Amino acid sequence: MLRKYDVLTEEQVTAIHDETMKILEEIGMEFEYEPALEVFRAEGQKVEGNRVHFTREFIEAKVKLAPSKFTLHARNPEHNLVCGGDNIIYMPGYGAPFIHDVDGNRRKTTMQDYDNFVKLAGASNNLHMTGGTVAEPQDIPDEVRHLKMLYSSIKNSDKCFMGSAEGRERAEDSIEIASILFGGKDVIKEKPVLISLINSLTPLKYDGRMLGAMMAYAKAGQAVVIASLVMAGSTGPAALAGTLALQNAEVLAGIALAQSVNPGTPVVYGSTSALSDMHSGSLSIGSPECALFISASAQLARFYGVPSRSGGGLNDSKIVDAQAGYESMMTLMAASVTGINFVLHTAGILQYFMAMSYEKFIMDDEMAGMLLHYMKGFTFDEEGMAFDVIAKVGPGGHYLTQKHTRKNHKREFRTAQLSDRTAFESWSKEKLDANQRANRKWQEILANYVPPALDETIDRKLLEFIAKRA
Amino acid sequence: MLRKYDVLTEEQVTAIHDETMKILEEIGMEFEYEPALEVFRAEGQKVEGNRVHFTREFIEAKVKLAPSKFTLHARNPEHNLVCGGDNIIYMPGYGAPFIHDVDGNRRKTTMQDYDNFVKLAGASNNLHMTGGTVAEPQDIPDEVRHLKMLYSSIKNSDKCFMGSAEGRERAEDSIEIASILFGGKDVIKEKPVLISLINSLTPLKYDGRMLGAMMAYAKAGQAVVIASLVMAGSTGPAALAGTLALQNAEVLAGIALAQSVNPGTPVVYGSTSALSDMHSGSLSIGSPECALFISASAQLARFYGVPSRSGGGLNDSKIVDAQAGYESMMTLMAASVTGINFVLHTAGILQYFMAMSYEKFIMDDEMAGMLLHYMKGFTFDEEGMAFDVIAKVGPGGHYLTQKHTRKNHKREFRTAQLSDRTAFESWSKEKLDANQRANRKWQEILANYVPPALDETIDRKLLEFIAKRA
Repeated sequence: MLRKYDVLTEEQVTAIHDETMKILEEIGMEFEYEPALEVFRAEGQKVEGNRVHFTREFIEAKVKLAPSKFTLHARNPEHNLVCGGDNIIYMPGYGAPFIHDVDGNRRKTTMQDYDNFVKLAGASNNLHMTGGTVAEPQDIPDEVRHLKMLYSSIKNSDKCFMGSAEGRERAEDSIEIASILFGGKDVIKEKPVLISLINSLTPLKYDGRMLGAMMAYAKAGQAVVIASLVMAGSTGPAALAGTLALQNAEVLAGIALAQSVNPGTPVVYGSTSALSDMHSGSLSIGSPECALFISASAQLARFYGVPSRSGGGLNDSKIVDAQAGYESMMTLMAASVTGINFVLHTAGILQYFMAMSYEKFIMDDEMAGMLLHYMKGFTFDEEGMAFDVIAKVGPGGHYLTQKHTRKNHKREFRTAQLSDRTAFESWSKEKLDANQRANRKWQEILANYVPPALDETIDRKLLEFIAKRA
Repeated sequence: MLRKYDVLTEEQVTAIHDETMKILEEIGMEFEYEPALEVFRAEGQKVEGNRVHFTREFIEAKVKLAPSKFTLHARNPEHNLVCGGDNIIYMPGYGAPFIHDVDGNRRKTTMQDYDNFVKLAGASNNLHMTGGTVAEPQDIPDEVRHLKMLYSSIKNSDKCFMGSAEGRERAEDSIEIASILFGGKDVIKEKPVLISLINSLTPLKYDGRMLGAMMAYAKAGQAVVIASLVMAGSTGPAALAGTLALQNAEVLAGIALAQSVNPGTPVVYGSTSALSDMHSGSLSIGSPECALFISASAQLARFYGVPSRSGGGLNDSKIVDAQAGYESMMTLMAASVTGINFVLHTAGILQYFMAMSYEKFIMDDEMAGMLLHYMKGFTFDEEGMAFDVIAKVGPGGHYLTQKHTRKNHKREFRTAQLSDRTAFESWSKEKLDANQRANRKWQEILANYVPPALDETIDRKLLEFIAKRA
């Protein structure tokens, strides 16, 4: 595997860390949740109203308690995932309320879309888990949505999935459901099966809903991504280094809370910080500034010895066009080469998280495959060095008919799934662009997908629990 | 500026170097040009027919003579370029015989297209020079094409440009033309003004046309890019590390020749090695394998202490679609972050070098701007760290109206030129994709472009020389 790309010098990492400590000590943060304030009081931190001022020693000591890597368990153990170290986990988008179609039309996300995206993620060779709120169904009442989504994630794939982060109760529902699937709370407390997305409320706050969920998961030994989305220029300063320090303060405070609740809780350092575009007023996630935040976040997480999370195929486009392609590749490649471990939003996202697209999902899946091959790098064994065949062919010769070529091309070369590599003459018979080809492809995949079997007793228990809660 | 990304370990670089030396010693290379063979004989290398076997000591000693960086001079000194070190030079595509239009139709390249691309490169803030055979006009007889192209490059822009690599005579024409423009051969011998693209004939050969041009440029003190395009699987082994060693052998032998002809000749280590796609049989330059070759080449060039060249916005698509976007970003980003110095083919290329596209040119120009901003990285001064404004705004506040935001956003944020960052409602009024927006944009730029004035006496002399030679 290729080495990781460090974009910052050690001095720059230290500068961000020092400013972060100054923010947490001198400015402090607000926590809109009494149980969290109680934890901090008990830890001897200064609490005034909702505002907490942290000592440097407290933050540094708590962050050290977080594991540098952990295993997330799937109902099919072949899909267990190691989060941390050199590993990368790609997964679909998260939370989009809209679907954009192949022609650039928009409609509300439905439960059927949710099921479909779980199936597409299940069928993918490049996406390692199905994710959480893969798309946010608007045709299901808010109170039962998390239950329906969890059931769909379990039923339609046997890869790892995420829990609900919408408050303590829904987190506890998620934990109950996971317990039914994996054989009890004691079992999952020993081996985490859920990972959930806890977001700060930038600048320098957390709301009660997220804190309730985070504390529930930490108590149950489940993993949490603790993420900050600073919009530089609106919810954060118009300064990239300052935005990084602000994000870092929010994430570290969150990690410190999780470790105070349950030392050793598996946590992931999360960043979706991006730009507030000064012309449109929109969030811009397809921007080079966002790629910088992703890159530096991977390195900060390494500095703190915890796994990292960022976005993946991020972009601001409304349709699967060249912009969707180049912006998404910039951010997914930045995440991949800098060593982000948990790449949420790898596949499907359009328009700064507002929409999912089936065609974009297929495009991003191809990109993920390309980047996995890129990161594998060069193989330096005898077949890879190929001296003998170079000597045999000599100057002016040809390799196509060599035994070495037939033997090694499948290992060394990746086969494109969506990209068209034919000549103009052949392409021009239909003149399909990548958007149109992707449109055919996802329909084929869905038509052929068979969800993995689920134990009938477990299935019944899950449905009973969901019926009771709904 | 961000640090450079090294994808190989030191041991891996050494492994490639050792195999390269073994190839040059044991297998040798063929040079179809008697003057080149004479040079090698005089240097004490073993020459049998066209085949030359090199000693490791000869190659290593000659490569050491090449400068690690040099300045390329433009007729407007504001556009002088440093090639090497941390610098990056972006420029248009090179050599495409076809133009693909916005609708995916194809036609032959004309002289008008050549002029237009020089103007677009001249107008760009992200492309540092205009390039060479920016597009290959099919409506101009082969014998005079290089003269017309050189004149257009000089007349339509005051940025640096490239010389013809099509044999000794055309190289000498290029040198004459540059001498007229810059005030004599003695002047340009001291300060190089031309850089030309010398390609090997993989595997392990050079033809007489390229060698004639290379030796003419070396004698005149002009810069040469010495490049190898191995098609792994057809003109090279189906093995990435072996392909790298094969490429390295060809490039180092070329550099050794240039340094033997004229010690200190400015040379650039060039790679366009890519994949021979096993399914379509085509060259594939939008592949992750090509991105790996680019990345490793930057590091090999650093190992040898010479500037590097690779491709930029490389892709296999036939139209400016998502594939053109994601493939081109992968290769241009790989080139940029790994520290390639001279990025030929940054803008305009479609279908593995076969076509130029005006829309693609605009798309790639945007990508180049994005990557320049990415590579600038974070600014760690007081404004960049932004502690005071973070303290002032505090938890839950807003930054948009802060003086710090008004003062710093232009320095910290890049403004998108082509990418659409608006919301769906606003975008959906016209529903233009990036291809269609780029189509409007290049026409606007061309309509508004005013070529920089050229001294009338020089202009007359250039036209006289061209008329005489034609």
